[in-house]
Amino acid sequence: MVIRDLVAKEIFEQSGYAAPAYSPGLIIRLDANENPFSLQEPLKKKLLEEMGKVDFNRYPKAGSPRLRERFAQYFGVDRDMVMLGNGSDELIQILCLTLKGKINGVLVPVPVFVMYKIIAVNTDNKVVEVPLDQNFDLDTDAMLGKIEINFPALVFLSYPNSPTGNLFSRDKIEAIIKKSPGVVVVDEAYAAFSGDTLVPLLKKYDNLIILKTLSKQGMASMRLGFLIGNKDIIAQLDKVRLPYNINSLSQIAANFFLDYQMEFASQVQEVIKRRAELYLALQEIAGIKPYPSRANFIYFSCIFDSDRIYVNLTAAGIYVKNLNKPPRMTNCMRVTVGNLEENATFIKVLKSVISELGA
Amino acid sequence: MVIRDLVAKEIFEQSGYAAPAYSPGLIIRLDANENPFSLQEPLKKKLLEEMGKVDFNRYPKAGSPRLRERFAQYFGVDRDMVMLGNGSDELIQILCLTLKGKINGVLVPVPVFVMYKIIAVNTDNKVVEVPLDQNFDLDTDAMLGKIEINFPALVFLSYPNSPTGNLFSRDKIEAIIKKSPGVVVVDEAYAAFSGDTLVPLLKKYDNLIILKTLSKQGMASMRLGFLIGNKDIIAQLDKVRLPYNINSLSQIAANFFLDYQMEFASQVQEVIKRRAELYLALQEIAGIKPYPSRANFIYFSCIFDSDRIYVNLTAAGIYVKNLNKPPRMTNCMRVTVGNLEENATFIKVLKSVISELGA
Repeated sequence: MVIRDLVAKEIFEQSGYAAPAYSPGLIIRLDANENPFSLQEPLKKKLLEEMGKVDFNRYPKAGSPRLRERFAQYFGVDRDMVMLGNGSDELIQILCLTLKGKINGVLVPVPVFVMYKIIAVNTDNKVVEVPLDQNFDLDTDAMLGKIEINFPALVFLSYPNSPTGNLFSRDKIEAIIKKSPGVVVVDEAYAAFSGDTLVPLLKKYDNLIILKTLSKQGMASMRLGFLIGNKDIIAQLDKVRLPYNINSLSQIAANFFLDYQMEFASQVQEVIKRRAELYLALQEIAGIKPYPSRANFIYFSCIFDSDRIYVNLTAAGIYVKNLNKPPRMTNCMRVTVGNLEENATFIKVLKSVISELGA
Repeated sequence: MVIRDLVAKEIFEQSGYAAPAYSPGLIIRLDANENPFSLQEPLKKKLLEEMGKVDFNRYPKAGSPRLRERFAQYFGVDRDMVMLGNGSDELIQILCLTLKGKINGVLVPVPVFVMYKIIAVNTDNKVVEVPLDQNFDLDTDAMLGKIEINFPALVFLSYPNSPTGNLFSRDKIEAIIKKSPGVVVVDEAYAAFSGDTLVPLLKKYDNLIILKTLSKQGMASMRLGFLIGNKDIIAQLDKVRLPYNINSLSQIAANFFLDYQMEFASQVQEVIKRRAELYLALQEIAGIKPYPSRANFIYFSCIFDSDRIYVNLTAAGIYVKNLNKPPRMTNCMRVTVGNLEENATFIKVLKSVISELGA
């Protein structure tokens, strides 16, 4: 048996997503855009109480019907317009598997969340990338040009965008939706931190799909993603969804999130405050240029070698995302907004790392 | 936007897996091959205690490295030979997505677990089906013939087979493994109830992959599947696995299963006892023919209209699997082995349903 002959060429030739590996012991995780606040003890107790009611020997509710309904209400749409996934990742995979008809292929701006491309390639889709403009906004002419030539079934946009943190112009997004022969997926993973959403546009465009997740708002452990849009498209996607994709405890956690949404929302507000402080602190460091952010992270460039900064930060137990990739992201990094202490420690250590580098 | 043009043809033309919908209230679930015994309270308490240690705001450990190691030990193989999935379903999907090289396509005997075909079709694989022989064993000549013509990348076999409950002959399985140009996947979802496993054959064949799950042994709620085999194949499959596919609480539950494996094993022993009783009870009903089972369910045929039996059982709150499909499975059903009471109630109601049908 020759493995090369068995494996899809595009999969054989790539190396897969490298998830972070943390060293043991006390570390500060500012690399994965998690909510820095853990669940308060009284709330955790309530959540575990609910979980204790589960029949562990029974399969989860297939398709999570009650949850679909509750989240539809939460998002302000009809029940048939919502589908749940084991994280957004699974929903991206379902989109890439299903929307491969006469019209097919994937278009993404770059830089953008890397999983769109990885999953598209793994599901045998042609991927076309279009660089963002100088302001990290969409290059509408270039995007529309590629849409005309490639006629993609899927365009992935993030609102706000990761890793750059900005919101694309609405006009530009709408221009792309209008010209797309297929579906435009707007990933609102970080929308809670921007105070803005394109959900109202669902009434206007039947080829718009919006992705949401609870991962950035305190439930990353439970893998809960949501896809919102045209019910006729959802009905097709739902055929590809594995029947028991959301396990029983994740279903409980999702309900719990809705029950205590005000608590989670207040954490979001605190992150937004911390973001402003962190931005100012980064701005004050000579040689560091932070970019304004509408998400729960800050993108910044350095005049130093970011690989060395990364290694030294990690040695000090602080994990950020090193994006160093020429030409656009040379010496660029992304740091998640942490809590007060985490941000202070990060800034302190970053300053000392930079001074040690003998800048 | 014309949805038909956007959706992969094979997906557009099928209807997806119909998961069971249960009516509310007190019901007896003998349709999904779950373990009938719920977690005892002291154990559940321990499990929830462990779950309480989770940082709900953090992502799960990507790739579950410690779990891979523990389950590798449990299955008696090397660490690199194990990969975890969000249920076996996800692992079947990963296999179908990855093994699509020069050699491609899927071969399955029928009747068999329906998800192989559904997932293979949804991932754009050609599927060839070969009927089992009169004894529900593999028709080796027909299978080898199709292997020669179609040269499939994947052959799916279940050991024991669902829905028929028997073990295929080892000789026949080995003949298929030897002739297969690709991978032979042996699904041992029900192996705990058969007392038999093909895991030792992994040393002999590098194109054998074995699937396992905790769903039939008391952890269906948590969606935990395992794939065991050739580490070079696993390394390819691992690229397609979504990085955070197993959530934090499922990881805890998997560890818990290993910590208390003796408890779960004793439940399996009890199910095996109950299976013998249920088989005898079915045999005593005139017009019902049960087939010997090595799994936690019993396949049976009736001389009555099984659709009507199904409707009447359901009306009485008892759910079984109605397989009624000509010609092989005309008036055939599958019932999961329940606990003592559930089995007694099922037999009592079945008898009364049959007498009401005026047989």
